[in-house]
Amino acid sequence: MRGSIQPVVRLVEAFARLPGIGPKTAQRLAFFLVRAPPETARELAEAIVRMKEAVIFCSSCFNITAIDPCATCTDPHRDRSTICVVEEPLDVLALERTRGYRGLYHVLHGALSPMEGIGPDDLKIASLLERMKRGDVHEVILATNPNVEGDTTAGYLAQLLRPHSVQVTRIGRGLPVGGDLEYADEVTLAQAMENRRAV
Amino acid sequence: MRGSIQPVVRLVEAFARLPGIGPKTAQRLAFFLVRAPPETARELAEAIVRMKEAVIFCSSCFNITAIDPCATCTDPHRDRSTICVVEEPLDVLALERTRGYRGLYHVLHGALSPMEGIGPDDLKIASLLERMKRGDVHEVILATNPNVEGDTTAGYLAQLLRPHSVQVTRIGRGLPVGGDLEYADEVTLAQAMENRRAV
Repeated sequence: MRGSIQPVVRLVEAFARLPGIGPKTAQRLAFFLVRAPPETARELAEAIVRMKEAVIFCSSCFNITAIDPCATCTDPHRDRSTICVVEEPLDVLALERTRGYRGLYHVLHGALSPMEGIGPDDLKIASLLERMKRGDVHEVILATNPNVEGDTTAGYLAQLLRPHSVQVTRIGRGLPVGGDLEYADEVTLAQAMENRRAV
Repeated sequence: MRGSIQPVVRLVEAFARLPGIGPKTAQRLAFFLVRAPPETARELAEAIVRMKEAVIFCSSCFNITAIDPCATCTDPHRDRSTICVVEEPLDVLALERTRGYRGLYHVLHGALSPMEGIGPDDLKIASLLERMKRGDVHEVILATNPNVEGDTTAGYLAQLLRPHSVQVTRIGRGLPVGGDLEYADEVTLAQAMENRRAV
């Protein structure tokens, strides 16, 4: 048993290396695949390999792409004077779904987090400053997450961008659409009051 | 973006098919692999493929094995008159770690659960009864989990095994070693009282 279970143990270990997957969950996943039809296991393995083959990072905005530079960076219809800075490729997807933003992006691939040992060098910050040197950027929208790490990152970037002649903005803070004032947390409510606009 | 993200979307979908992995977790796992070094992704993919190639089920006890029948079933030093019935291959591993059991096993690959639509035909029950026919089995130890599904399965098997001239036992119930009587739940405590033994 010990010897024959070795490939399963190795799979459990591989699963356990993924973020948020503890040893128990890794075991459950591995034994699910042990019992699953061969297609299910093959599909997952192939999806991993194909993704790794097909997906690269755009050398300009660092979003995921199949070609470098990515379709957004080379799109002549997009406003090249505005760069929206986000933490993750998924954030780009979320912003694209709004259909309201027509500028370019810059994906940091994370946020500053001293707790997790993530410093400026671990993020695509140097390359953002590099993009500023080209001089055609008028506005940088800091759209990092509205939490401690995102705010810290935005504050840090704002400081770095100050020497460049560029307008730096932070995405709006306030009550989400469909939200209920009664149930909003104090910080959000305070920010909503602060960010009030004339109607 | 939409098109270039397709391999990632497919990977998210493949992850989301695993049990207990919701769409958000699947996204997190997929994007972890997007950013991970190629080795990490390849190791996981290879571990899945290798496990699926190497691991089969023993045609006698249905435990996972590299050769059929498995090493336990063919081991001449093991007591062939006792079969311990468990739900999962991991249960065999747990029992083997005790070094106290020298009989054979039978892995059901689950437990009866009307809620999840798992009936007798979904488990390796027919093959257990088949093993009874060989006549050399004196005792069947029902070591399914001490929960509702496990108890239901044990009760069902006990009934099916009644016509066979075989002793049917259920693993002991009571307080776990290192447990604290004060903090034991009522059902466990009641079972511990019920299962008291003369010293």
